[in-house]
Order: sequence, then C-alpha cells, then structure tokens
Amino acid sequence: MSRILAVGSVALDTVETPFGSVTDAPGGSATFFAAAAAHFTPVSIVGVVGSDYPDSALTFLSDHGVDLTGVEKAVGESFRWGGKYGFDLNTRETLFTKLGVFADFHPRIPDELREARWVFLGNINPELQLDVLEQVDEPEFVACDTMNYWIEGERETLMRLLGRVDFLIVNDEEARQLSGEPNLAKAATWIQRHGPDHVVIKKGEHGAVLFTADHVFFAPGYPLEEIVDPTGAGDAFAGGMIGHLARASSVHVAEMRRATVYGCAMGSFACEAFGPERFASLCERDIDERVRAFREMTAFEHEIPSAI
Amino acid sequence: MSRILAVGSVALDTVETPFGSVTDAPGGSATFFAAAAAHFTPVSIVGVVGSDYPDSALTFLSDHGVDLTGVEKAVGESFRWGGKYGFDLNTRETLFTKLGVFADFHPRIPDELREARWVFLGNINPELQLDVLEQVDEPEFVACDTMNYWIEGERETLMRLLGRVDFLIVNDEEARQLSGEPNLAKAATWIQRHGPDHVVIKKGEHGAVLFTADHVFFAPGYPLEEIVDPTGAGDAFAGGMIGHLARASSVHVAEMRRATVYGCAMGSFACEAFGPERFASLCERDIDERVRAFREMTAFEHEIPSAI
Repeated sequence: MSRILAVGSVALDTVETPFGSVTDAPGGSATFFAAAAAHFTPVSIVGVVGSDYPDSALTFLSDHGVDLTGVEKAVGESFRWGGKYGFDLNTRETLFTKLGVFADFHPRIPDELREARWVFLGNINPELQLDVLEQVDEPEFVACDTMNYWIEGERETLMRLLGRVDFLIVNDEEARQLSGEPNLAKAATWIQRHGPDHVVIKKGEHGAVLFTADHVFFAPGYPLEEIVDPTGAGDAFAGGMIGHLARASSVHVAEMRRATVYGCAMGSFACEAFGPERFASLCERDIDERVRAFREMTAFEHEIPSAI
Repeated sequence: MSRILAVGSVALDTVETPFGSVTDAPGGSATFFAAAAAHFTPVSIVGVVGSDYPDSALTFLSDHGVDLTGVEKAVGESFRWGGKYGFDLNTRETLFTKLGVFADFHPRIPDELREARWVFLGNINPELQLDVLEQVDEPEFVACDTMNYWIEGERETLMRLLGRVDFLIVNDEEARQLSGEPNLAKAATWIQRHGPDHVVIKKGEHGAVLFTADHVFFAPGYPLEEIVDPTGAGDAFAGGMIGHLARASSVHVAEMRRATVYGCAMGSFACEAFGPERFASLCERDIDERVRAFREMTAFEHEIPSAI
C-alpha cells in the first residue's frame, strides 16, 4: 500500500512577512507535509492538538483525504509558533514558541497504521522519532527530518536514529553542523556513511541537492516573483518528495530525481500563500505545469559545436 | 571573426585559503577570463602591468594562444591584491589592494582590434568600460561585469553603460543592490528593462541563473569535494560563457543556456588550483566531461506515473 504515515507537529502559526500577516493559521510539520503529500497518495498523520484547535484547520486536511485518526485531542493549549520574516524573506526571527500540549507528546501509532510501508518522521525529538520506529512493523522506506536544536542537544540519539532511516532531509546549515564538514558534497558522504542511503540537502531559494549511492542531482528553487510566506516550504518539499515516491512505489534513482523536483514544486507552492492555503486550490494540472517549468529551466542540449 | 576582445585587470594575487597559500600568482579579471575563454576561441586582452610583472605570468597566457598586443607595460608596480578565505570558503577578507600602475589605466584598443565583434568588459570603472565601447567599431555582442563599488559610487555612469551592453554578468548581491529588488527574478527584469537583453546572476556555490527575453535557465554549482582557491571563478565563468558563444557565433537562447553550463564548468575548474593554473593542464575532454556531469546532475524524465 502506498499510504504514508507521517508523524510531526500540528500547530497554529502566527506569521508576519513584508506582504502581510496571519494569526493562528494551520501549521506544523505534519500539516504542511500532509497538505502537499495528499496530492500524490493517501496520508495518515499522527500528532496532537489542544482543546482550542479549530475544527476548520483539521477539516481542511480531512477534506483533502488526509486520515486524522492518529491525531489526538488533548486538554490544554495547542502548539503555537510565531515568526517574522525580513525584507528579502531569507532571514526569519522566531517571536515565540509555546509548546502547549506538544510538550508531552508521545506519538501513539494506531494499530491499523502499524503496517505502514512509507514513513515520514517530521522534525521532533529524535527520541520520539525512534519510538515511532519501534511501533511500526516493517516499513519499506523511512524518511526523516531534523533541526539544529536536536543536532546540538540530542546528537547521540540522533546518530542512533540515522542508522535506521533510509532518507535524511536536512537544510545546508544542518548538514554542515551534523557532519562538521563545510563542503556539502563531503557532508552528504559523511551522512550516508552513518546510515541513510539517500540524503537531500535543501538550500531554500537555491533549490535542493539529492545524493544517492552514485548520483548527485540538483533541482533549482522556483523563481517566484511574489513570495507571500515561506513557512512550511521545507515540510511541503518533503511531502512532494515522499508523496511522489509512495505513489510511484519506487525509490529507484530515476524516481528519486523526479521526486526532488516534485519536492521543489510543492515547496514553491507553499510560499505562495499564508499557511497551507495554496494546497487547497491546487490541482494536478498546476503541479504538472510547475514540474514542466522546472524541466524547461534546467534542460540543455549538450553538443560540441564545430571546433574553432 | 570569433575573436574576443577582453578588457580588465592583469594583477598579482596573494591568497590564503584553509588549504594553502600563494604569493604574487597571476590574477586579475582579464587573466582569468582569457585563461578560460582561450579554450574555446581566440582571445585578445587589453590591460596594463607594471615593470615588475613576471614574464612567466604573461607567457602562461600567450602559450595558450592569448594575444597580448594590447597589454601595456608601464613603469611602476603591478596591481596587487591580497585576500584570505574563511573555513567554508564562502567568506573572504581583502587584506590589501595596491592599484599601482592600474590606478592610471586608460584602455587603448590597438587598431587591429577595433573591429572585434565579441567584447568582454571586465570589472573596472564604468567610465573606462564606456571608453572602450567608444573605441570599438560595431561589436555584435558586448558583455559586461561590475561590482558593488561601482554600483554605489558610479551609478549614473553605470546606468549609461547598461544601455549599451547586451549582457550583464553580476552576482546575486550585486543584482539586488543595482535593482533595489531583493527578489532575483524581479531584479533581473529590472536590469533587462534598463538595457541588457540577457542577464546572468552568479550565486557562487549555488550556480548561476540566466535570464533571457522569455526564458529562465538554472545551472547548479559543480559539487567539488576539494576547493583549493575560488579566486577568479567569476571571471573564468564569464570566459567559459562568452568563449562558448563566440565559438558558436550565436546568442540564440539554446546557445546561451549551453554557455551558462560552460561558464559553471570553467568556474569550477578555477577553484581547483591557486591562480589560473588549472587552465594550463585542461584539455577539451576535461571540459566535455564536466559539461556531461552537469547534464547528468540536472536531467530528469518528466512522466506522470499511473494515478493512485
């Protein structure tokens, strides 16, 4: 079955960009991942929300076919994050992080999801990510995200986790920090030596680089003229990638490359609106057109012109 | 004729990187440009050196077919630049800039080069770049580089120059500064509105983006595992690009795209050794193989897999 089990945060984001602001918009890694991946394949998410979490934010996902049976409703406040982006949208300041019910989150995988073959471990404590792996039977492909906070504070646990995942998705800063290698090609090799067969390094507006056994593949960032809000672009990228792989039921290198482009496409859509709103109106043709645009932006004929 | 007339600095560079150091190595925009472009088409450079400039640094170029009749030898010291790169090679500190005879440089184009059809204006005062254009008859294609120093201090002259060039080559920071647009797609549009039909924005290790009338094309940075010295990579990039275009005698969009990849290839070779040394041993097969590697790194098949 090509259903993805995704574990991560389900939050409410308050975001300010040079182009506007939004309060308590649906957010969190599981939300953005699922909003993107659901365009490719069925997705089940496991997470927790507080008693104040608006039903509309959840029905937005269920309306798009996301299975929410693994989302626990706990007494207390929902996880809230607030951030502000600078003029060029490349810098962001975290204004507040209120963990709420997320502080005591212990993912419990419903029985019917323990046979999931495709697993995405969103950016949460690696201890909890390992705990999820204990609860699933024999996943075919485990993809994992992390961040500087865990690399610094939970390195040992993270390294144990790395040995059990097939695919690590990090940004350039995280790859450098994790490996101690400033050179990204070397950083990827280091990571592969410590577990994952495949590594993707995300570079924000500069796109993403995929490292597989013998191949390197680059996908550029989509040159959006208007970026409304980059929040969640990284999780939407993961959703596009894993969504495509699960749909194709293959992690052959050709599919991995294609998946990287789907990832960049979904990441670019995430930037076009506040929250995961853009994914509500997205249709297959929009995705297809953007992927074609990526091909058009990178294809060139390699012929040697006649000599001098 | 596909000969390129290139005007720029001919200097001596003293560089320190985490991997070693070099003193008074051949450098300057004209040197790196010519060392790269000469692999594609004949090149003539116009510049000035001091009486202390080592013959070996010039014969290095003439041995590779670069015509040096336009290089004036003036009494005084050569232009010297000193710089030091940080751990990850993305940051560099200028230790000294001694203009020497370059301070009074006024490019004088030899009569036999005034009919040049392909002109590269390396990064010098835009007043001098304009002066070069006064001395050439009817160039078919004028490419131009500049830097933050001139964007800040000589904006008016630079804007006049822009109206007369076909192709501007800048890095991302310069594009943003010149246009006042943080978004690179918008920055390129702004630049195109002010003159050049084509713009390339260089992004260092992240590659380069080409903007033509209706097309955007991305070429990634080559993922070198060992970067010895990035000095001159931008000029070598320009050399590969204009070199390819002049050899192909075409600025058709397909050639412009291919040229961008040749540019990235030559820029990557520049990083493999101190000074322009790597270009001495480079053969056509090396270039061809690297361009193939770029294709391999960016090609993907776009087919929609069967639906869910």
